[in-house]
Amino acid sequence: MAKNFLFKLKVYYEDTDSGGVVYYANYLKFLERARSEFIYSIGLSNKKLLNEFDTLIIVKSCNIEYKKSAKLEDELEIFSSIKSYTKTSFTMDQIVKRKDAIIAVAEVCLVTINNNGKPIKIPNILDKFIK
Amino acid sequence: MAKNFLFKLKVYYEDTDSGGVVYYANYLKFLERARSEFIYSIGLSNKKLLNEFDTLIIVKSCNIEYKKSAKLEDELEIFSSIKSYTKTSFTMDQIVKRKDAIIAVAEVCLVTINNNGKPIKIPNILDKFIK
Amino acid sequence: MAKNFLFKLKVYYEDTDSGGVVYYANYLKFLERARSEFIYSIGLSNKKLLNEFDTLIIVKSCNIEYKKSAKLEDELEIFSSIKSYTKTSFTMDQIVKRKDAIIAVAEVCLVTINNNGKPIKIPNILDKFIK
Amino acid sequence: MAKNFLFKLKVYYEDTDSGGVVYYANYLKFLERARSEFIYSIGLSNKKLLNEFDTLIIVKSCNIEYKKSAKLEDELEIFSSIKSYTKTSFTMDQIVKRKDAIIAVAEVCLVTINNNGKPIKIPNILDKFIK
Repeated sequence: MAKNFLFKLKVYYEDTDSGGVVYYANYLKFLERARSEFIYSIGLSNKKLLNEFDTLIIVKSCNIEYKKSAKLEDELEIFSSIKSYTKTSFTMDQIVKRKDAIIAVAEVCLVTINNNGKPIKIPNILDKFIK
Repeated sequence: MAKNFLFKLKVYYEDTDSGGVVYYANYLKFLERARSEFIYSIGLSNKKLLNEFDTLIIVKSCNIEYKKSAKLEDELEIFSSIKSYTKTSFTMDQIVKRKDAIIAVAEVCLVTINNNGKPIKIPNILDKFIK
Repeated sequence: MAKNFLFKLKVYYEDTDSGGVVYYANYLKFLERARSEFIYSIGLSNKKLLNEFDTLIIVKSCNIEYKKSAKLEDELEIFSSIKSYTKTSFTMDQIVKRKDAIIAVAEVCLVTINNNGKPIKIPNILDKFIK
Repeated sequence: MAKNFLFKLKVYYEDTDSGGVVYYANYLKFLERARSEFIYSIGLSNKKLLNEFDTLIIVKSCNIEYKKSAKLEDELEIFSSIKSYTKTSFTMDQIVKRKDAIIAVAEVCLVTINNNGKPIKIPNILDKFIK
């Protein structure tokens, strides 16, 4: 398992607002891209989880603190790691950085549900991701 | 039928970019909101169309011209009308205005498909919308 | 002051994702729309705050918990209230509901900065909003 | 000059809607990312154009045709090329593909303005991009 998964992105116009900085909601898009790539990095995908394991990972809560502003064309790095887990949920720490500057820090709690929306035990296939 | 359906909206931070104006892609969101409200105004909805008539309206093409910039907290009006139709498609004219100023002009071609993604004849229920 | 400001919105396609529900980041757009309308309701606006009082309200942190899913064409209500405040920041409780069902609950901490990005004391003009 | 600039991207949840496909407005975000990377590929950037050459490139019109749907986790390729240009505008062809399948085809007309929003002649620095 990548203990601290790195995902890089660049800020485009679509991400910014008229305050001249990245719009606060859009960081949650960045965090989700990073989590998706984390899952791809262990040979899985959201589609595979759904089609083969009847499992959907959904966000239960998100606690994000904005430290500094990011701007157009900034190159950002997101570091994602598993902080803790139970049988039915796991919590990730996600840090958005621009070089050495911390832009935002988030704690995201995720749970697994099946195709009918019912909470389920985290399937074993996700062990290498979570443990 | 409302020959020229009016939909009003206000510009929020989410709609703008760091150029200080509404981001060009977001006008297509505004246009789709206006089309949805047009459909609601005749007693239908996207959900009803899908669940009761196995019909999904999708955009085939969009031709949009940007005339002036819109900015944060602008109050915009969108005028939507049916320009032409065939048995399987219809074209709408949509104009985005701020008071008397024309902000953007769009021509949007739409087609109807069923739940399997197959093109279908426009169902009669949409007659009052289109004709 | 409206102690518990109500803002209503409808869910459009732009708000949803292929999981069939409102995309988790988009709730933060809804919350910001509600906060903006709260400010308009007391005769202010983000533009006026910036141009006349050199004040920008920015989000310092957001803690959101997702309770239930919202779907296409749902009509949502957001209840916003001031939870607490200091000389330089204030915290809002924001609840997203669909009729009696609680969809999401958020605690958002906001601070005021000037046009140069420096933190400033909350201007008196905001007293009727905060106190 | 790269006569036909290639930009690759992956579809995330944020890009899709509850119809199960990429939301039609989001293709315009993809197109803008591709144009930005095209500009970076010749050693420029939107920020550099603005700060050093008082030039902003804005979209005058966009004509997009949707051929096939793209879905979650699809890997898309965007091919961008200059179709024609005048002293004050240029037109790009942009094609979105998934392997051999054409997903969308767009013709985008762009103009250059200065920081005050006035149209200006395309600066020479953009010659290697346009010609």
